[in-house]
Amino acid sequence: MKVEKTRNPVTVAEAVFRVTERVCCTGTERVPLAASYGRILAEPLTATHDVPHFTRSPYDGYAIASADSVGASGNSRISFTVVDHIGAGEISQVTLGAFEAVRLMTGAALPVGADAVVMFEQASEAGRTFTIRKSFAPQENLSLQGEDMRSGERIVPAGSFIHPGTVALLATFGYGEVRVGKRPVVGILSTGTELLEVTAPLEPGRIRNSNGPMIAAQLARMGIPYRMYDTAADQLEECLLTVRQAMTETDCLITTGGVSVGDYDYLPEIYKRLGADVLFNKVAMRPGSVTTVAVAGEKCLFGLSGNPSACFIGFELFVRPALLTMMGADKVYLPRTTAVLGEDFLKANPFTRFIRAVHDRTSVRPAGFNKSNAVSSIARGNSLIVLPGGTRGYAAGDPVDVLLLGVEEGTDEWVL
Amino acid sequence: MKVEKTRNPVTVAEAVFRVTERVCCTGTERVPLAASYGRILAEPLTATHDVPHFTRSPYDGYAIASADSVGASGNSRISFTVVDHIGAGEISQVTLGAFEAVRLMTGAALPVGADAVVMFEQASEAGRTFTIRKSFAPQENLSLQGEDMRSGERIVPAGSFIHPGTVALLATFGYGEVRVGKRPVVGILSTGTELLEVTAPLEPGRIRNSNGPMIAAQLARMGIPYRMYDTAADQLEECLLTVRQAMTETDCLITTGGVSVGDYDYLPEIYKRLGADVLFNKVAMRPGSVTTVAVAGEKCLFGLSGNPSACFIGFELFVRPALLTMMGADKVYLPRTTAVLGEDFLKANPFTRFIRAVHDRTSVRPAGFNKSNAVSSIARGNSLIVLPGGTRGYAAGDPVDVLLLGVEEGTDEWVL
Repeated sequence: MKVEKTRNPVTVAEAVFRVTERVCCTGTERVPLAASYGRILAEPLTATHDVPHFTRSPYDGYAIASADSVGASGNSRISFTVVDHIGAGEISQVTLGAFEAVRLMTGAALPVGADAVVMFEQASEAGRTFTIRKSFAPQENLSLQGEDMRSGERIVPAGSFIHPGTVALLATFGYGEVRVGKRPVVGILSTGTELLEVTAPLEPGRIRNSNGPMIAAQLARMGIPYRMYDTAADQLEECLLTVRQAMTETDCLITTGGVSVGDYDYLPEIYKRLGADVLFNKVAMRPGSVTTVAVAGEKCLFGLSGNPSACFIGFELFVRPALLTMMGADKVYLPRTTAVLGEDFLKANPFTRFIRAVHDRTSVRPAGFNKSNAVSSIARGNSLIVLPGGTRGYAAGDPVDVLLLGVEEGTDEWVL
Repeated sequence: MKVEKTRNPVTVAEAVFRVTERVCCTGTERVPLAASYGRILAEPLTATHDVPHFTRSPYDGYAIASADSVGASGNSRISFTVVDHIGAGEISQVTLGAFEAVRLMTGAALPVGADAVVMFEQASEAGRTFTIRKSFAPQENLSLQGEDMRSGERIVPAGSFIHPGTVALLATFGYGEVRVGKRPVVGILSTGTELLEVTAPLEPGRIRNSNGPMIAAQLARMGIPYRMYDTAADQLEECLLTVRQAMTETDCLITTGGVSVGDYDYLPEIYKRLGADVLFNKVAMRPGSVTTVAVAGEKCLFGLSGNPSACFIGFELFVRPALLTMMGADKVYLPRTTAVLGEDFLKANPFTRFIRAVHDRTSVRPAGFNKSNAVSSIARGNSLIVLPGGTRGYAAGDPVDVLLLGVEEGTDEWVL
């Protein structure tokens, strides 16, 4: 029987910090714009021209010289002759003469000699002429060159998540390709003699491996490629071999199970054999207090708990920010909000509790059965309630912190 | 010059309802579990066995018969002999005799004859024996068969989004494949004589097509395949041909531009030529009031505004729920929360305003320049502030509704 040194729990914040501080960037690459959604910008998005790059009409109407409109009123209407007619994308060849106007559509460039636009509803039309009943100021009803963005301006900083709005901006500035953070390749290795493959029939005392497929989905959600290793029985030498192999084939490795202090928990010994630097092997949290992260060479080894809920949370709290940091992201933490607890959660615990929950608008309630080995609750819910450790429970109506899951972009500050 | 009938604006809620009511399901298909993340469950996920499917130990410890522990106390410790030693996934061949115990690890099946577990910290060990100082109740420290889920129980309803937790559950129950809603193939056609391709050099009076790539990214975010058509100039016959072709090649078509009342806005005429049923062509919202949805045969034609912000919002408000409905999803609307407005937004408008915004915890502020033709603001922010139409503005500190963007799963109720 194995003697285990006492483990010293670190706070969640300290654990998160230790991980993100140690991971290495995976470098950058260029991808076509059409493949850039979900990637991390590796260089600032800079305006390559003014937006708009020409002064244009924001309305359907008539371009005029404002000077011609001076003195117009209901009693003294001023008449204009329409000398051209353009849509967006067209350039009028006309230079406006006195009391001349160009009929133009939203988005069309202002013709030479014009400095204001009369909206249709401000004009009274009659064939090729129209009249106005008010004067127009210079630049009235115009969308001015550069009013949105200036050439050379840095619009989106490096490290930003590329969402559809970013893509629109990249397209505007002609970025057919964009430099982004390289995605790491992540290894997944589920350990445990009890594990069966998903399609295997049940056997007494054994369960199907759900952590492996779940982590694969957590990675898929981040768009990150992975390599799945066959589940490993609790055999030290065999498991060590697989870990060594995975470390040559992937940028980092996630294992599940084997990190606790049980007689067949071999991950601590494996870290020792690899000469890995164990960043922490106990976190003051429930579930998942045995979550371990170690670094061997430059590669991170994430030792997640074999309990599904603990495994899930360990990924979201530690692996996700690490992977985002590797890709150069600046907002690596789960977004957070505050909500009103929908039901009592009275059991006090000295460790910080993370409870799978359903967040809806401004309230939140646990997603069900919440033992750390429960599988059912992780299939429900869209968030994690965070209850700080301490001596008291929480009652319905208490405001609590909530971490939101399945949100494409995170936040840049860990505040729990 | 064209005469346009007055358009009657419908409320956003009415417009959303008209769309989701009319779209057709695209059918279902089976996909491997590893490809199921982000899909919509087409059949309920049913427990194929109890979870756990055998009574097991939730701790590292010793399995005993609780009857043997009766009377144990600090002064009168009871001693047990360890007759076997098993880990998770192993089955003890032993049947416990009187005062015998099996050392077992977390997750291991309870041996025959045992009905309680003594945790290590509750035992005082000495070689192959240990003593206890308290009695144990039947079922103490056990994880009972079926306590999490019962065989036959419906765990997740059809129509649910498959997130990583769902995948864990599918794996648990041996679903190597899963039946999901088929993804529609969506056509994208950006119209406007002013549009240049992304990699084209700028020309006077013209801008690069940003709406097409943006919509492609909005679809990519939903995992939905698309077919991008070449941008179309404002030419009625040419545009009509492309629309007809797209309707044979895709399940629905998104166009941008051409839906307003300008002289070169041909989409209304195209809907007429197709004999399409126009569900609405004016929505009481800013930006994007000209957003039009029509149905021709069984195919939806989404006519989004050419203005980038309006186009973006039109997609999120109308196209997204339609596509999710086509895939059989039950939560098709953007999730919503309430937050405190971080700055004044004083301009009143009779129409509902949607303002691109940055939501952080419990506050929200506009993402910047918010004319509907602004491109810069759509590259910022993670949410939309919703300001109901009316006669008043809003001041910093007011609570406002916020729709969250980039969240994988929506909500089942449209409440704005």
